[in-house]
Amino acid sequence: MTGRIVVINPNSTEAVTRGIDAAMAPLRLPGGAAIECITLAEGPPGIESQVQADGVIEPICRTVRARDNDTDAFVIACFSDPGLHAARDVTAKPVLGIAECGVLTALTLGQRFGVIAILERSLPRHQRYIGAMGLQTRYAGSLPVDLSVVELADEGRSLARMIEIGGQLKERERADVVVMGCAGMARYRDRLQQTLGIPVVEPTQAAVAMAIGRIRLGWEKPA
Amino acid sequence: MTGRIVVINPNSTEAVTRGIDAAMAPLRLPGGAAIECITLAEGPPGIESQVQADGVIEPICRTVRARDNDTDAFVIACFSDPGLHAARDVTAKPVLGIAECGVLTALTLGQRFGVIAILERSLPRHQRYIGAMGLQTRYAGSLPVDLSVVELADEGRSLARMIEIGGQLKERERADVVVMGCAGMARYRDRLQQTLGIPVVEPTQAAVAMAIGRIRLGWEKPA
Amino acid sequence: MTGRIVVINPNSTEAVTRGIDAAMAPLRLPGGAAIECITLAEGPPGIESQVQADGVIEPICRTVRARDNDTDAFVIACFSDPGLHAARDVTAKPVLGIAECGVLTALTLGQRFGVIAILERSLPRHQRYIGAMGLQTRYAGSLPVDLSVVELADEGRSLARMIEIGGQLKERERADVVVMGCAGMARYRDRLQQTLGIPVVEPTQAAVAMAIGRIRLGWEKPA
Amino acid sequence: MTGRIVVINPNSTEAVTRGIDAAMAPLRLPGGAAIECITLAEGPPGIESQVQADGVIEPICRTVRARDNDTDAFVIACFSDPGLHAARDVTAKPVLGIAECGVLTALTLGQRFGVIAILERSLPRHQRYIGAMGLQTRYAGSLPVDLSVVELADEGRSLARMIEIGGQLKERERADVVVMGCAGMARYRDRLQQTLGIPVVEPTQAAVAMAIGRIRLGWEKPA
Amino acid sequence: MTGRIVVINPNSTEAVTRGIDAAMAPLRLPGGAAIECITLAEGPPGIESQVQADGVIEPICRTVRARDNDTDAFVIACFSDPGLHAARDVTAKPVLGIAECGVLTALTLGQRFGVIAILERSLPRHQRYIGAMGLQTRYAGSLPVDLSVVELADEGRSLARMIEIGGQLKERERADVVVMGCAGMARYRDRLQQTLGIPVVEPTQAAVAMAIGRIRLGWEKPA
Amino acid sequence: MTGRIVVINPNSTEAVTRGIDAAMAPLRLPGGAAIECITLAEGPPGIESQVQADGVIEPICRTVRARDNDTDAFVIACFSDPGLHAARDVTAKPVLGIAECGVLTALTLGQRFGVIAILERSLPRHQRYIGAMGLQTRYAGSLPVDLSVVELADEGRSLARMIEIGGQLKERERADVVVMGCAGMARYRDRLQQTLGIPVVEPTQAAVAMAIGRIRLGWEKPA
Repeated sequence: MTGRIVVINPNSTEAVTRGIDAAMAPLRLPGGAAIECITLAEGPPGIESQVQADGVIEPICRTVRARDNDTDAFVIACFSDPGLHAARDVTAKPVLGIAECGVLTALTLGQRFGVIAILERSLPRHQRYIGAMGLQTRYAGSLPVDLSVVELADEGRSLARMIEIGGQLKERERADVVVMGCAGMARYRDRLQQTLGIPVVEPTQAAVAMAIGRIRLGWEKPA
Repeated sequence: MTGRIVVINPNSTEAVTRGIDAAMAPLRLPGGAAIECITLAEGPPGIESQVQADGVIEPICRTVRARDNDTDAFVIACFSDPGLHAARDVTAKPVLGIAECGVLTALTLGQRFGVIAILERSLPRHQRYIGAMGLQTRYAGSLPVDLSVVELADEGRSLARMIEIGGQLKERERADVVVMGCAGMARYRDRLQQTLGIPVVEPTQAAVAMAIGRIRLGWEKPA
Repeated sequence: MTGRIVVINPNSTEAVTRGIDAAMAPLRLPGGAAIECITLAEGPPGIESQVQADGVIEPICRTVRARDNDTDAFVIACFSDPGLHAARDVTAKPVLGIAECGVLTALTLGQRFGVIAILERSLPRHQRYIGAMGLQTRYAGSLPVDLSVVELADEGRSLARMIEIGGQLKERERADVVVMGCAGMARYRDRLQQTLGIPVVEPTQAAVAMAIGRIRLGWEKPA
Repeated sequence: MTGRIVVINPNSTEAVTRGIDAAMAPLRLPGGAAIECITLAEGPPGIESQVQADGVIEPICRTVRARDNDTDAFVIACFSDPGLHAARDVTAKPVLGIAECGVLTALTLGQRFGVIAILERSLPRHQRYIGAMGLQTRYAGSLPVDLSVVELADEGRSLARMIEIGGQLKERERADVVVMGCAGMARYRDRLQQTLGIPVVEPTQAAVAMAIGRIRLGWEKPA
Repeated sequence: MTGRIVVINPNSTEAVTRGIDAAMAPLRLPGGAAIECITLAEGPPGIESQVQADGVIEPICRTVRARDNDTDAFVIACFSDPGLHAARDVTAKPVLGIAECGVLTALTLGQRFGVIAILERSLPRHQRYIGAMGLQTRYAGSLPVDLSVVELADEGRSLARMIEIGGQLKERERADVVVMGCAGMARYRDRLQQTLGIPVVEPTQAAVAMAIGRIRLGWEKPA
Repeated sequence: MTGRIVVINPNSTEAVTRGIDAAMAPLRLPGGAAIECITLAEGPPGIESQVQADGVIEPICRTVRARDNDTDAFVIACFSDPGLHAARDVTAKPVLGIAECGVLTALTLGQRFGVIAILERSLPRHQRYIGAMGLQTRYAGSLPVDLSVVELADEGRSLARMIEIGGQLKERERADVVVMGCAGMARYRDRLQQTLGIPVVEPTQAAVAMAIGRIRLGWEKPA
């Protein structure tokens, strides 16, 4: 084994963590880094507002501190990247956020990226974050699927809605690459890309893919 | 072995290719992707102008076509990223440029990146490229070491000059992360970071680090 | 009395709250809104890092909820605007941040604003926030006074250092208006403006000045 | 009384001035600043072109000079902010423009603002102004109601059209806050916000609300 | 004769060169500069991809070198501006690209320009180029006519399609000036402008119009 | 004669008009457009503030109307481009401003332009204008020579100061092309470029050079 990447799902829903874990399969190489996906027990069932996103920062930082000794890189697996910069304050190891890495990876796959969001009210949060990254001129915008929890449990309906929203991002907003704006959408990636005909980025995969090489380089935090 | 990454040095100087090859050491994992560094025989000894950068696009594309069957990802190892988008036209495999990946990686290590360039006259080329990437608001600027070939052969002098320029980027231009603007500077990275006290990105390492995970995901070019 | 504005100092240092309270004097009008300055007991003595800024979000939200009934507007008096958007999630009353309002007010006093920061390491935080506000092209940058706690207690030395940094923002970075990047600098404003010869914005005053009129309008949160 | 704010309606239509005056009601506090709304006799009946906007600058400046002694702040109540910077040249008192203040206030109520314009041909003027403010990345765009004078006299029709255009800004252009792009729309604000379900900024109210606190601070024009 | 402007059509289709030549008629003044339109024999029949655009850079540079002695300015007549900066490396004479000049000219005719592209896949190339020019905030976007070669031969159908796309740029993307994104569209300009009711820029005419005056000034390349 | 270009010097100083007229020499071609330089009698001796710039708009528009019949293009020869958009409202002929054209021309000569201003207090005006043009990311900034009228009369001293300021734009602000920010600096252009070693744009020449070709094309104002 050459290192360990800890992926923190900051919501308390184990099923989401299991979905993330399954999405890691192609990135688990024989002799490569171990990829461990953990659930933040203190998190809410889902992160849907700024107050919920901010509420998990403290337990994320506690987790990072607790696992610092046996971990080579941390990935925060919520599209708000909650606590990304706080966690970087508390460890010298790489800490990657799935929104940051999903978007940066999209920049190598297209010129104009769109984001599929869960809820309408996430949009200002996305916009502020893309602004903080300085990427507004490459951003086609975010559009929400706006599905209730019950509807999200219906896989066919969820995929249909993602295809609809992805199609709007492509046709109306002229995105040529799409980022899935939630760690819980991983299992739809292949089918969505197939249907849309443009690259679709699954952000937890994007972040862990970046982490695999990064943990070998040790560039963080000059003493 | 799980895949092969071909790193193309588009200048014809074998010593540069050897330097790149040496810099790949930490990224060569047992059981991981093979990393093969090749020299573009058709290239000039060094790429110093737009006309030289553009001149290697055709042989790069020829190389990509020739190696497409036995390669999982290509990395173009010149900070102008010559032929990046042309090469993406001719293969369905990931093609990564060291400038693009060096800069994107820097975005995860600091908020404002500066670039150490070789020559004054590279600056407009850097600025156009950062503009095409839409990253002007995170860009502290590029500053040149402006050393002649003879001077570059003097390792002590080269390092001293990089430290001087890196310090200007940090102090005067307020960069908090520095990208080395040339594939031939790899061996100075550790010492430069040590001295500057802020992260220093070696761009070929950054690109190959991104490629390692990416080749597992297969997101390029929906049919 | 026509309303009540609660100004939350999110650090636990009473002396800072007293300084803020004193700075409110010109904004306390006969018959106007009451301006109440409170200290967040749960806060650290000073907020110097992202982890500290994020750490006060939860108690700020608790305070906002607790005071929602008898308050017409909240002002968060720390230049990181911690919890600004979270607090807006938990109340329908206006919540204003001193960084946001300080910067917006500066836009009416000059074309290019600079910020006097306390610490070097606050700069990336400032830059991300100005980015999230979409104001990079009007931003001359932040420069730190970088004084220790002991030095900050020395009023003469603090003012001298602010004048030095303000002068650099004006001369070298070409700012034509300066924002004080900390709620604790209020007592220096007049002298600093006098010396620099360009407008200086004290951000808590700026935020409360905006709040005074805003609480009359009731525009927040359409049901 | 603690100060006097003079609101200049730069068109010569008294009915518009009366509408502005009525909109000031919530901002008139017992013991607070007097708010005096005046009509620019020299102005055209309405300002519909750049040449008309520029044509009122001279009489605005004359008015500012004439009223400088007994006024604490001036507000220019036309969405082109004609003469804003010229007026700042001729007085040391705060001069606020309703477009500038309406937009800055919107930035505290949403992340992406749209503007309801009167005429199609105002759009380039709006775009230039938002550009001069450096706010393009937060700007969802302006859309015109394009009503004739006769149609504007029909209140039901005007409101219906504003709702239609506001809805387009919200749905198609993804604005989450709307600014009314004319001083003459004030009486529709409440109903428009009620219907759209997102905050609606009436710009003269926004400007005067900012002026109320500002006149107490005296930050303009260091000698 | 006061100078010679050489317009290089970098595709090998003589009919396109003849169309460009015809479009030069209004710019040929008695006693004014000669305008010579030449075909790049080495080019492809049409430039439709990045790899094709990059492929003509070398022959363009060869042509520029060969004609340097008897030419006062060069214009590269392909909307990708292939080899623009490389050509500037090899001559001290002005070299103008039709995309650059078409867009800059549009900035004097409207506030928000849209581009009519030939193919969907040209869009990312346009976006990168507008980014390198730093003009994203004035750019309403590019939209493609997406016509096959056979369809393009049908003049009525081509014009109908340009009117449709131009109308979308005007109505949906709110462009107030349109740039024709191909050197081969010149003969449609007048009718397109007539129908759309907003200025339409033919880029080769725009470039040559700029060159006519520029060759008199001799500002290029200080020794 | 093929057309007439009227260059309006909006200040009342005949010596400035004579200087502009002399600078037109290389652009006066046998058989080419007549270039007539006129002085705005109503203007101030020099335009040094926003209020002065705005004050000349009305007489400029009057002049444009009066000369509309016998003129093919107008050039407004003051670096504030006063009345540019108003004048475009009152004529269907091309109206070009020297700031707009000087800056657009600079974009074809370098990647990052700086402006030599007369007075410190012009800087915010420049910044607002560059913002309205959407060109902030290509703008290295403006720096003032800050010479009094007496000093400006001293040619040696003026040139020395322009060289000093131009050098700061080049070295410290990393401009690779400089625009002269005043119509009265024309006679220094050649020497300044010679000394700085980068292109220097004289803006009235730039505007008239663009006008010469433009008047042949007749693109303005579709009916």
